[in-house]
Amino acid sequence: MEKFMEIEFLGTGAGSPAKSRNVTSIALKLLEEINEIWLFDVGEGTQHQILRTTIKPRKISRIFITHLHGDHIFGLPGFLSSRSFQGAEKLGQLTIYGPKGIKDYVQTSLRISQSRLTYKINFVEITEEGLLFENSRFTVFAYRLDHRIECFGYRIVEKDYPGELQVERLRAEHVPSGPIYGQLKAGETVTLTDGRVLDGNDYLGQPKRGRIVTVLGDTRQTPNILKLAQNAAVLVHESTFGKEESQMAFSYYHSTNVQAARAAVKAHVGQLLLTHISARYVGPKALKLEKDAQYVFKKTILANDFDNFSIPFTRKQEGEQ
Amino acid sequence: MEKFMEIEFLGTGAGSPAKSRNVTSIALKLLEEINEIWLFDVGEGTQHQILRTTIKPRKISRIFITHLHGDHIFGLPGFLSSRSFQGAEKLGQLTIYGPKGIKDYVQTSLRISQSRLTYKINFVEITEEGLLFENSRFTVFAYRLDHRIECFGYRIVEKDYPGELQVERLRAEHVPSGPIYGQLKAGETVTLTDGRVLDGNDYLGQPKRGRIVTVLGDTRQTPNILKLAQNAAVLVHESTFGKEESQMAFSYYHSTNVQAARAAVKAHVGQLLLTHISARYVGPKALKLEKDAQYVFKKTILANDFDNFSIPFTRKQEGEQ
Ligand SMILES: [Zn+2]
Ligand SMILES: [Zn+2]
Repeated sequence: MEKFMEIEFLGTGAGSPAKSRNVTSIALKLLEEINEIWLFDVGEGTQHQILRTTIKPRKISRIFITHLHGDHIFGLPGFLSSRSFQGAEKLGQLTIYGPKGIKDYVQTSLRISQSRLTYKINFVEITEEGLLFENSRFTVFAYRLDHRIECFGYRIVEKDYPGELQVERLRAEHVPSGPIYGQLKAGETVTLTDGRVLDGNDYLGQPKRGRIVTVLGDTRQTPNILKLAQNAAVLVHESTFGKEESQMAFSYYHSTNVQAARAAVKAHVGQLLLTHISARYVGPKALKLEKDAQYVFKKTILANDFDNFSIPFTRKQEGEQ
Repeated sequence: MEKFMEIEFLGTGAGSPAKSRNVTSIALKLLEEINEIWLFDVGEGTQHQILRTTIKPRKISRIFITHLHGDHIFGLPGFLSSRSFQGAEKLGQLTIYGPKGIKDYVQTSLRISQSRLTYKINFVEITEEGLLFENSRFTVFAYRLDHRIECFGYRIVEKDYPGELQVERLRAEHVPSGPIYGQLKAGETVTLTDGRVLDGNDYLGQPKRGRIVTVLGDTRQTPNILKLAQNAAVLVHESTFGKEESQMAFSYYHSTNVQAARAAVKAHVGQLLLTHISARYVGPKALKLEKDAQYVFKKTILANDFDNFSIPFTRKQEGEQ
């Protein structure tokens, strides 16, 4: 049984691994859509976490790195090496996106350790904001955030699904079934044997808007967050500090839970997932972190390692972007 | 309650992490002796393993890397970074020993991730075999092994403990106690007030031989193993393959369980600890790996993650090295 677009948290901690939270990594599972999994950040021990999930490393085709701090990249060389040993099938190539320096880091680690991979890695070091990647089903945009080090947020936009062909209506109008239905579904104009001319677009339902997922790296509040998160079905936002520590959050180039919630309100997102939780917030303190954010934006969840969320289709008004 | 010289296995697997065994790291705990812990190899996830032990990262003062394969070094940058956050006390510096390339690997990882450490790292890249390190209590030797990549084994030799002063005998001979006893204990010659001349060495018991611990990296069988392991109280030897796979072991520059046991016999070691166990050997297969080695060398134990062994004093004949 395949699953629809899901996001699985492999590590939800900040800075150093703790017993209850590993350092950052997030898997976007697009198995039904394109039979691929995309990773966002690969903190140390990500491959260990993956061992405890159903994720197959060979399905991971793209890795998006938000920034080069150790808690977001130190698991990359190990993951890439171990991926070489996955199964007998020929492995697909893998593309790594990230700030300038990611290529040097990975290549140096693999060179010095004399790791020989059985697949090709492509590197895309981000120099310009905006469109980063596009295929027939998804578009990915990257914009800069405000961290001590260059840091990007990613906006993954699923393309709209064309409307369904209104078969009942065509039958009611005595349009004979056959290849013509395919042409109409594709929006083409066809001439029937009885002379009638039909425009396929008149027989298509509302197109279904694709879903938008936004994954931010570590950041202070900055206008690009809105650009990245606008109308997202799911926004993954860091929450390194509680609302009482906004001064500290600012000094360390991080955000509080409530800042994240306010951003979610402004951007009209469907769901806010808080991550990058400091080890100081455990038990009731973690609960409070979540509750205080929910007070501002109800649909907030504080993510834990191995939490898995389905990304729902959210109907949107015409004219919305 | 302090503990005496112990060896704790933080990772006993080969190649990639598995659910039951992490990749290589071994802690030699010299807390009673010099209040330090030394690590041998730092595979990915070593800092995670340490979280589940009583080991304090700040006590780790020396790290010995056997070779630069990823499963032996990919946990190093993360461990070094996290060590910076350990407690408020000023952190002691740390020395890393290993093959040429280890400095480049660590420095590149720390530079690209902009990790700022709160303590100093010294690097000693090994270019010559033999004496590597010496302080008042220990001497460490490094010799090359036979792996696909440059690889070292380490022989840690505890210095002998001087014999106890035979106080009962001195009293029986009416030697008055006082500072003279200290001089005698130090092996000095003293003249008593009654004119007698005593040589301290005549009043000292047998010196207690220090312990020898040998930690090998990945290797085929090679004469240097004997040089490294001779008379060791404990020999840590890789056992990547079972005895049926000696051909494969050779091809991959590894050893079998029985080769390790034969080396233990030849080197007259006290105890053989097998590690670097392939994920293929689980349950009864792991048991067989151990049993087959015990058939050759009885005092063999197949190490598991978090196994902890005390290093016993083993009496040795005069003239032994
Ligand atoms: Zn971070
Ligand atoms: Zn190895």
